Amino acid sequence: MTEAVLSHLQHEHDTIVERLKAILRLPSVSTDPAYAEGMGATRRFLLDRLTAMGLDNVQLLDGGGQPAVYGAWTGVPGAPTIIVYGHYDVQPPDPLELWHTPPFEPTVRNGRLYARGASDVKGSTTIAIETVAAFLAVQGRCPVNVKFFLEGEEETGSPSLRTIVERYRALLSADAMISADGGRASTSLPTLRTGTRGIASLEMTVRTAAKDLHSGRYGGAVRNALHDLAALIASLHDAQGRITVAEYMAAVPGLTERQRSDTAALPIDEAEFYAEMDGAPYGDPAYTIGERLTLRPTIEVNGMWGGYTGAGGKTVIPREAHAKLTMRLVPGQDPDQAAAAVCCHLQAACPPGVTLSFSPVTGSPAFSLEAGHPLLEAAEAVILATAGRRPVYARAGGTIPITAIFKEMLGLDTLTFGYAMPDEDVHAPNEFFRLSSIAEGLRDWTLLLTELARYKPEDFRARG
Amino acid sequence: MTEAVLSHLQHEHDTIVERLKAILRLPSVSTDPAYAEGMGATRRFLLDRLTAMGLDNVQLLDGGGQPAVYGAWTGVPGAPTIIVYGHYDVQPPDPLELWHTPPFEPTVRNGRLYARGASDVKGSTTIAIETVAAFLAVQGRCPVNVKFFLEGEEETGSPSLRTIVERYRALLSADAMISADGGRASTSLPTLRTGTRGIASLEMTVRTAAKDLHSGRYGGAVRNALHDLAALIASLHDAQGRITVAEYMAAVPGLTERQRSDTAALPIDEAEFYAEMDGAPYGDPAYTIGERLTLRPTIEVNGMWGGYTGAGGKTVIPREAHAKLTMRLVPGQDPDQAAAAVCCHLQAACPPGVTLSFSPVTGSPAFSLEAGHPLLEAAEAVILATAGRRPVYARAGGTIPITAIFKEMLGLDTLTFGYAMPDEDVHAPNEFFRLSSIAEGLRDWTLLLTELARYKPEDFRARG
Repeated sequence: MTEAVLSHLQHEHDTIVERLKAILRLPSVSTDPAYAEGMGATRRFLLDRLTAMGLDNVQLLDGGGQPAVYGAWTGVPGAPTIIVYGHYDVQPPDPLELWHTPPFEPTVRNGRLYARGASDVKGSTTIAIETVAAFLAVQGRCPVNVKFFLEGEEETGSPSLRTIVERYRALLSADAMISADGGRASTSLPTLRTGTRGIASLEMTVRTAAKDLHSGRYGGAVRNALHDLAALIASLHDAQGRITVAEYMAAVPGLTERQRSDTAALPIDEAEFYAEMDGAPYGDPAYTIGERLTLRPTIEVNGMWGGYTGAGGKTVIPREAHAKLTMRLVPGQDPDQAAAAVCCHLQAACPPGVTLSFSPVTGSPAFSLEAGHPLLEAAEAVILATAGRRPVYARAGGTIPITAIFKEMLGLDTLTFGYAMPDEDVHAPNEFFRLSSIAEGLRDWTLLLTELARYKPEDFRARG
Repeated sequence: MTEAVLSHLQHEHDTIVERLKAILRLPSVSTDPAYAEGMGATRRFLLDRLTAMGLDNVQLLDGGGQPAVYGAWTGVPGAPTIIVYGHYDVQPPDPLELWHTPPFEPTVRNGRLYARGASDVKGSTTIAIETVAAFLAVQGRCPVNVKFFLEGEEETGSPSLRTIVERYRALLSADAMISADGGRASTSLPTLRTGTRGIASLEMTVRTAAKDLHSGRYGGAVRNALHDLAALIASLHDAQGRITVAEYMAAVPGLTERQRSDTAALPIDEAEFYAEMDGAPYGDPAYTIGERLTLRPTIEVNGMWGGYTGAGGKTVIPREAHAKLTMRLVPGQDPDQAAAAVCCHLQAACPPGVTLSFSPVTGSPAFSLEAGHPLLEAAEAVILATAGRRPVYARAGGTIPITAIFKEMLGLDTLTFGYAMPDEDVHAPNEFFRLSSIAEGLRDWTLLLTELARYKPEDFRARG
């Protein structure tokens, strides 16, 4: 029975790749209103596909921001109901000049499919959709009940996700969630994700005067917003990259033996790690790189600007300067409290006469899936069958806000089962997805959905 | 005789204001290639005006960058030959959204003419041109020989000025220079400028990796170019704004009693000074504000940028970050050596694995006009006659690179005799020029040119 589905998927492989290319051509950048048309086109593409493959209740779930795309198949009463999560929005493609081929013209080179969103996460989302489509096409049924929830705001911190979940709570009733987002931890070892870091985001503005001033006429006696912004940013870390915000770090628990040994099972070659990006070490040397990337929090400036940044020069003392900050959070840190600790530190470091203001904070806490959870058991069975060995358990450094939100609002646990590899340049120029991941992913998702049918709905819910 | 010229200028006043508005409508931003057409139109405007008023040899002086506009009247053999300096280029108008009326649509409100370049320095340049035009129109002659040199690169640090002076050395032979650039030090007291600060400019780039990285996947273990740029910028000053680059400060001489008393003669009300801009104190409290603004050097960041600066957020660890720096220099500091001291400090502060690079340095040293110089004597006589008191002697905080270059290459001293007032928001939104300065300037320039005719050419040259 499963064999027929697997065989169908092999036969359909090239069609599925073309379908992935088609959605990659649609520029769905959620953060920038200039891409509104691309967002709309992507939603229409998904609505059409979910309808064509035979899902019910296909619709947009609107929470006042970028709506999510929804569609369900609930034809096995008594079997578990699984929400399949993906997102159709992508990061901005800039800096454009560093792309070897245009970000929204998917191009295959050396077995890699280059395009913005290929790895994060249209590739893995397409795998999930097409697996369910194959079950319905071949068998007219799926092993478990399935509800697709394809978000349009993952790359902007999911601002309207809570409203959507609140508003469409009935449509979203389920027993567990599987996420196509949240990729593999290794290109060589089979891994399973047991959790993600959380995130808190904010923008800060430093203001030192009511107007820009001539640097000849005023230089030497008035504060410069760029100097003050630089000093404030510099106050967040020591020279080695250790976070110096005491109140922020106070909520961070020490590592358990199990956490340290799980992380050590996926060793990172330090020389190779830094050589690959031509980067330099950063962070607390009391922790391994793997621990720093997944079990320790960060404060990161993602953008900073002020004054004259065009061609040539302008001899100005800027009155304002800006920075965008994100913090990656570990279990135990509350996004609002973590951001407040950073803001409080910055306010305390702000000299008299300098005004510091912050945007509202958006964020979500870290998420964890307990050892022995049926979602992990089912996934482990798939990996045992296909890789012939148990997976390595690893936390992810990134954030999938929906996992924390669905846990909090609907009591659902999430298994991340995506195919993005750690070297695929997500959020950067020349993002790509391995073509080989498509066949592998279609096979594994087929086995996983079959495996999940062994459980009763309450097996998942009991853990909630 | 002078009376006839003064009367003619009063009669022509409104025509002259219209002529000033016409040149203010031409967007001559030298730093940005997008304004090439505005630069060309402004040159044509000046060539036409200098020709129409009866100058000889009207032409562009090309040194490979933005050419200067030249025209001469040399009809009094034996009288001094004065180069009249102005510049026709202006600063970029951004941030555009802060202008109350468009920067290139000159608008009069409350006796003030608002436009980019109105105060810096098309207003004072027009005064100088129209004074000479009046002499030629009324008398058919000028009291002294006059050569206009109207630069097109003042706002970009005069990169091709040396080439122009070298190439057109014969056309530029003269005995002294009067600059329409370099404004008044006070809106209430008559002042004369005895010198300017120099400048050194450069751009720096910090690089921490070969590519932008995902802040979830890599955050906590890799350096962030923005963090490193912030730390480097923060290392240039202490919290009060004292420069912390020892080698840079080593070349700065202590202040003389005369310098301190001249500066004290133009007292600055600290509360009023900071209230006017809603700014906060900065710099070494061992010096008065006046001293900090004119007799002490600066290191100023004029622009800083890196990472994602668009709408919304992007969870990226940027690989590169940039800053534009200018240093204001005092007598005793060499621009190249001063910049090298700053670069050396930054390199020493740069952590291992971080690459720091610098653009070539452009700049010019500070300039001084000695006490008792005939240029100062002549100007003092004008001020005594019109204001009924001796002027206050004050150095300028800004830079007029041409003064140092003409001194070095042609042995000429420069009197700055412009009408920009210190509150006219030059280099900032809503730059304006007082309409009353036009009548005042036309009168004073008429008297000054008459006064200079009392001297022999060698009186100026002997000081060279």
